[in-house]
Amino acid sequence: MRPRIYLAGPDVFLPDAQAEAARRKRICARHGLDAVSPLDPLPGEPAAWLALPEWQRIHRCNEAHIRSCDALIANLTPFRGPSADAGTVYELGFMRALGRPVFAYSNEAASFLDRTLAFVGAPQGGPGAWRDAEGMQIEEFAAHAAGMADNLMIDGGIAAAGGVLVRRAVPASARWSDLAAFEACVEAAGRILREGS
Amino acid sequence: MRPRIYLAGPDVFLPDAQAEAARRKRICARHGLDAVSPLDPLPGEPAAWLALPEWQRIHRCNEAHIRSCDALIANLTPFRGPSADAGTVYELGFMRALGRPVFAYSNEAASFLDRTLAFVGAPQGGPGAWRDAEGMQIEEFAAHAAGMADNLMIDGGIAAAGGVLVRRAVPASARWSDLAAFEACVEAAGRILREGS
Repeated sequence: MRPRIYLAGPDVFLPDAQAEAARRKRICARHGLDAVSPLDPLPGEPAAWLALPEWQRIHRCNEAHIRSCDALIANLTPFRGPSADAGTVYELGFMRALGRPVFAYSNEAASFLDRTLAFVGAPQGGPGAWRDAEGMQIEEFAAHAAGMADNLMIDGGIAAAGGVLVRRAVPASARWSDLAAFEACVEAAGRILREGS
Repeated sequence: MRPRIYLAGPDVFLPDAQAEAARRKRICARHGLDAVSPLDPLPGEPAAWLALPEWQRIHRCNEAHIRSCDALIANLTPFRGPSADAGTVYELGFMRALGRPVFAYSNEAASFLDRTLAFVGAPQGGPGAWRDAEGMQIEEFAAHAAGMADNLMIDGGIAAAGGVLVRRAVPASARWSDLAAFEACVEAAGRILREGS
């Protein structure tokens, strides 16, 4: 059995989302993984779910897809703010609670701290004590040379799961289409899932 | 045994975060709930965790806190973008995967659609087919009169768990201090957890 891997990410919002999912699935297949997209129909979907409002039905199918997979890869490329897409983050936390491996990639190399400082405009304080205009603390941890990729729960969940987090600087115009970081993440995930290292 | 409830939210970033957590705990206690804050020390924290980088240690303690609780209340007030704080969303998905009840509140009444349209500046398309400047789809679901509160995984997770999501318009200056929506959420959570309705 090839490991099944759920592809979490805002890629589902791309204009050609089905074709984009197919591109990613082909890359996973080359690395020995069966990929599941949030856009896939759910085999055996309960008939009762067909009567739910669309957003509830999509949510339930996505949770069921995640439960059917051995691991998850999240696209953490920042989405409408300094952090990753909220749906992607929910799914990452969900899979982490199931105790299964989580992996991630981002087409953004700047640290969460630097992105947040830029986003909030005129931060108050200084290194070690940054706050935004509302007085809310800005997370700052010195552990990585590259800085954190996102909120500590995200970086922490991936680290605790023994996953990898691939970050790569990509020109803004290609940040939703460039799959080099994705493929590096898939390659590492495949190696870990199939060989345990 | 009083139900234990985990308080997820960016309140941990407030200038007086410990006092803010204490305020919230007192409200929970009045409604028969024992609240756990991410800022609380973890009873029985493994000695090995003391040697971890701070962000990894906080992450592990928060996951352990969540596992020790019967339910979770998330503060979904938008945080540095149209969506809730990423750490909060991770924790909501985490608790949902454990199959335990999740509740939420937000001091923002505007829909996720309206907030996202405002955030992206000059959206393309129109009702039913909104996209941002990168061509990425903007989520739009007609199910609620009030519109969605956030990404469908968030609204969907709370709905599937039988939870409540309290939304209230609060002046911007009070959106991190006003606890009326929080207390309404706690009251509902207490009723559901103690009486099952």
